[in-house]
Amino acid sequence: MDDNKNKECTVQFEPSGLKVKVPSGTTLLEAAHKAGIYLSSICGGDGYCGKCKVIIDEGQFRSRSSSLLTPEETRENVVLACQTEVLSGLMVTVPKSHSLEASQVLMDADADIFSRLTEQARVELFEYDPLVRKLCVEMSPPTVLDHTADHERLYTAIRKQVGAPLMQTGFRVLQRLPKVLREDNYKAAVTIGQRGGTTEIIEVEPGRRCKINYAVSVDLGTTTVVAHLIDLTTAKTIDTEATYNSQMPFGEDYIRRIIYAEQADAFDQLQLCLIQDVNDLIKTMAIRQRINLQDITAVICAGNTAMVHFLLHLDSTRIRREPYVAAAGFVPPIRAAEAGVQINKRGLLYCLPAVSAYIGSDIVAGVLTTRIYEKEKLSIFVDIGTNGEIVLGNKDWLICASSSAGPAFEGSGIRCGMRAGPGAIESLNIINGDEIRFKTIGDSHPIGICGSGLLDTLSELFVNGIIDRTGRLKAGGDARLTEGDDGMQFQLVEPQDGHREIAITQADINNLIRSKAGVFAAIRILMNSTQTKLEDIDAIYIAGGFGNFLNVHRAITIGMLPDVPPAKLQFVGNTSIAGAKTVLLCRRALETADQIAESMTYFDLMSNPDYMDEFIKAKFLPHTELSLFPSAGDLKSQT
Amino acid sequence: MDDNKNKECTVQFEPSGLKVKVPSGTTLLEAAHKAGIYLSSICGGDGYCGKCKVIIDEGQFRSRSSSLLTPEETRENVVLACQTEVLSGLMVTVPKSHSLEASQVLMDADADIFSRLTEQARVELFEYDPLVRKLCVEMSPPTVLDHTADHERLYTAIRKQVGAPLMQTGFRVLQRLPKVLREDNYKAAVTIGQRGGTTEIIEVEPGRRCKINYAVSVDLGTTTVVAHLIDLTTAKTIDTEATYNSQMPFGEDYIRRIIYAEQADAFDQLQLCLIQDVNDLIKTMAIRQRINLQDITAVICAGNTAMVHFLLHLDSTRIRREPYVAAAGFVPPIRAAEAGVQINKRGLLYCLPAVSAYIGSDIVAGVLTTRIYEKEKLSIFVDIGTNGEIVLGNKDWLICASSSAGPAFEGSGIRCGMRAGPGAIESLNIINGDEIRFKTIGDSHPIGICGSGLLDTLSELFVNGIIDRTGRLKAGGDARLTEGDDGMQFQLVEPQDGHREIAITQADINNLIRSKAGVFAAIRILMNSTQTKLEDIDAIYIAGGFGNFLNVHRAITIGMLPDVPPAKLQFVGNTSIAGAKTVLLCRRALETADQIAESMTYFDLMSNPDYMDEFIKAKFLPHTELSLFPSAGDLKSQT
Repeated sequence: MDDNKNKECTVQFEPSGLKVKVPSGTTLLEAAHKAGIYLSSICGGDGYCGKCKVIIDEGQFRSRSSSLLTPEETRENVVLACQTEVLSGLMVTVPKSHSLEASQVLMDADADIFSRLTEQARVELFEYDPLVRKLCVEMSPPTVLDHTADHERLYTAIRKQVGAPLMQTGFRVLQRLPKVLREDNYKAAVTIGQRGGTTEIIEVEPGRRCKINYAVSVDLGTTTVVAHLIDLTTAKTIDTEATYNSQMPFGEDYIRRIIYAEQADAFDQLQLCLIQDVNDLIKTMAIRQRINLQDITAVICAGNTAMVHFLLHLDSTRIRREPYVAAAGFVPPIRAAEAGVQINKRGLLYCLPAVSAYIGSDIVAGVLTTRIYEKEKLSIFVDIGTNGEIVLGNKDWLICASSSAGPAFEGSGIRCGMRAGPGAIESLNIINGDEIRFKTIGDSHPIGICGSGLLDTLSELFVNGIIDRTGRLKAGGDARLTEGDDGMQFQLVEPQDGHREIAITQADINNLIRSKAGVFAAIRILMNSTQTKLEDIDAIYIAGGFGNFLNVHRAITIGMLPDVPPAKLQFVGNTSIAGAKTVLLCRRALETADQIAESMTYFDLMSNPDYMDEFIKAKFLPHTELSLFPSAGDLKSQT
Repeated sequence: MDDNKNKECTVQFEPSGLKVKVPSGTTLLEAAHKAGIYLSSICGGDGYCGKCKVIIDEGQFRSRSSSLLTPEETRENVVLACQTEVLSGLMVTVPKSHSLEASQVLMDADADIFSRLTEQARVELFEYDPLVRKLCVEMSPPTVLDHTADHERLYTAIRKQVGAPLMQTGFRVLQRLPKVLREDNYKAAVTIGQRGGTTEIIEVEPGRRCKINYAVSVDLGTTTVVAHLIDLTTAKTIDTEATYNSQMPFGEDYIRRIIYAEQADAFDQLQLCLIQDVNDLIKTMAIRQRINLQDITAVICAGNTAMVHFLLHLDSTRIRREPYVAAAGFVPPIRAAEAGVQINKRGLLYCLPAVSAYIGSDIVAGVLTTRIYEKEKLSIFVDIGTNGEIVLGNKDWLICASSSAGPAFEGSGIRCGMRAGPGAIESLNIINGDEIRFKTIGDSHPIGICGSGLLDTLSELFVNGIIDRTGRLKAGGDARLTEGDDGMQFQLVEPQDGHREIAITQADINNLIRSKAGVFAAIRILMNSTQTKLEDIDAIYIAGGFGNFLNVHRAITIGMLPDVPPAKLQFVGNTSIAGAKTVLLCRRALETADQIAESMTYFDLMSNPDYMDEFIKAKFLPHTELSLFPSAGDLKSQT
């Protein structure tokens, strides 16, 4: 077989028909990426997630066996693309359910909650004054006595409706202006957008199109990209959509992706992944709502600094190198088309401001949404995403840190982990140490576990004594405890009707504990460095794509969050997209976001000698120092 | 020959080699335009100007004889393209001296004066604070303790040097920023431009390029386009260039050109003419000064409203139709590349503001340059171009009108008229009613008469009794008085060494008188309507491309301007380009220009019943009412 080592093999993927030539020995996952097919692959090609299943129709290959495949699948030549090497020309079918396309049509079940959160934040905090809006402008037509030029006539009419001391008109808009104004006898639908301190006239249409104007807010997550479609006329969210980030094959976290892009000179490719995700999300919602892309006039993004850099093809190479400098924290509004985002040709793309290379605009959005920046008392904001970012502060000061907790609670690096979508176990209880009760999103057959389910699982395993304080599965009489491919595992759901079993492995548990320990250690360091006592904390807000029903107190049970009374804990969902939406709908909120980003102090955990100590102490359940968790005594009484 | 009427004939033009098919009977001028060759043709194809000479090398044609051709020229098949019909396939040579190319390399002799005028206006009025400037920005490189993002680091550094509360960065600039900043260890040359109230970062380069930054100011005249190249680092004008407006074949004045463009759907073509003129002027100066076009970062234009509309391809069709509405008076700054102007790809194109469809930004520039807007006492500003625009007012009010005087004083419609360039008679005296003394620009052999020479000629003919008060050449013993092709004419220069004679015809005189009458009638109407008396006028400023040495008092002799003491009269040259340059070099001057444009009241002469009366009275030399010109008695004593 070594003779074939340098042989070129043609791999053809169906149903797309895309072909690619690769050297013998290449993995099918690499071949697919080379062909431009982005298979879901949460684990980054490590064979854990089982998201990259494909069917080999023809040809020779070598594939590692995996417990993620049922015997039926193996019989039908279903393989994990990342665990399969090409040995000859191949014909491969990409099942629809595992391609990007399918994941896009999954409705994000928790979007509705987030939507309500935003409405609330908006109504309470900020008046309706969107960054981009469409005005119905009626002018009196020119006469011999009033021959003001069309352009100045328009400006005067706009200024009667909104405060816009500084205006700018796009060249193409100006060229079409005289014709458009006369089409509806000087009644016009004028789309204006804020660009710095200037109000730009983005589009002028005949008056009858006054009520048609949409925008999209996007949360650019490292693992998941979420988009909401907003009717700017009513300020209502009319659709939501989410997808895995297509960059995932290139690395689980953004540091790995930056390294990959540098080594493979693949920044173009990584940008394209993200732009396509955003475009696909927008297109899916637009088609579903029968909206013309031309009528979407703004996109607003929040996300970690690296994702925003990838989206805009800004230089991200210094994010991972000392002294960790971003190209831009405050990204000026640009024309969406310039970045490749397909909406109205002259529509604008906004990004919320970031604090630093490691504290992105998603965290600023969280601070904005939870309003901790205006409170007298101290609050903690924790965002559990691919990294765990922490903010501590009040109206006088805000300090923040990034814990690099890892994406375990997003379901990444967890064998049966998945994002909060239909079929995900979102809550779980273990009754009498043996009987498992759970609820899935959409009440469908369980196909995996999302963040809230993982938190429940870890907590229940601990409370029921199935794992010890170090997280080790206790060898014993439990029938659910078996030896799997990856070592010890605890079965939650038996395989049934062709569905694979759902289990949590020792490796999964270790991953989850590392994540929670990272978060708790970061909180401790921030509290210690500011001499904040537990009783000074008035509220802890926990954000992230956990799912709809997070049992927040269980985050205390496992020692992820400090032991505050339950009333002080609040799950706030995806505050990244909620904050983006708030800013979209109110320009004063953008000013507030700018002030938040500017005033936040970044605390570098890695250069702090105590962080590792705190991390090691937090790797116990709930902690080495039980005195920090007085409520641990009541654990058994919780359900 | 009638059989050939619909025959298609191929005409080939050398040296370009361009070919075109036209029906038999088409004029060569039309054929040339159809082929995309813009022959100079000031008279608009009426056979007066002699600017469209070409040589027929082969083929059949029918040409009207013309006194503008010497016998040698006729022998060598030199014809006026506008007076020549195509009868068969033709080979035609366009002499270099008559094509656009050649006219561009003529150095504008009066540019230097205008340049000095601007310097003066600038120094006295406004501080150096250009619309576009290059800053040398030194930043301290990031450290672990100062990891501010590159973009914000740059903003902070810029704001240490200039007031720029609102800034915007171009997307491509942002993408390149991290690399460029590190090229010269955080020393950068930053080009910033004013765009509305926002300061835009146009370009960021390594620090060593701090001192390289240029701009071009342009006067978009209906007949002549003038450009000055300015070193923005020193604020000095380093080169000047002028050319005839290539739109001239499509009509002598802009109304005719709009009609032509509407009928022939030729707005694209007319824009292209003007854009090419501007680009050619810029390129000529850049090559001569060894400047890279990328280092020209701004172009600023002043001109009549129609020219600005043509340049930007704005809809000009309503300029000629009641109620005479422009697409825009205040044109926002745009990227020059968007309009097709070839400078730095991200460079800006500014236009000065206009008052109305008939009072363009050239007049606003004139008011700015002469400072009549800030004087206690009343002044009159007169701009003699293709139209004659008049402004009357002071710091409290400004009223303006357009006299449609016609382009006679620009040399158009005058047989031997030409613009102020080498060989143009710029001053002329008649001694003892017979001997002619004159001076040409560059002291070369006379080839025509420019504006100042025409004013002198008309005045001298009148003062010497060669024409009567109606302008009629008096039949008599004068040997210079002959019967030419166009009726009576007065010879100024005999034909010599192959140079044609220079003469002024009765038709020329009538044209000049119509022009001066239009201007004077407009001044009278503005004065009457504001109850302004002659003694209230503190100053009269006369602007236009007359040439370097205008004997301004002769404008009173012929009754073009009111009879004020000589000390109150001042020739101010091309104030359109002078004003444009002032604005370029000082952003406060742009605000002032905006205020001027906004505050000026447009007075419509055509709808005023008294205008025709005044015009008819002014068609005498100096006027029907001699009491208006008390100084007419001293005429004989002037030289």
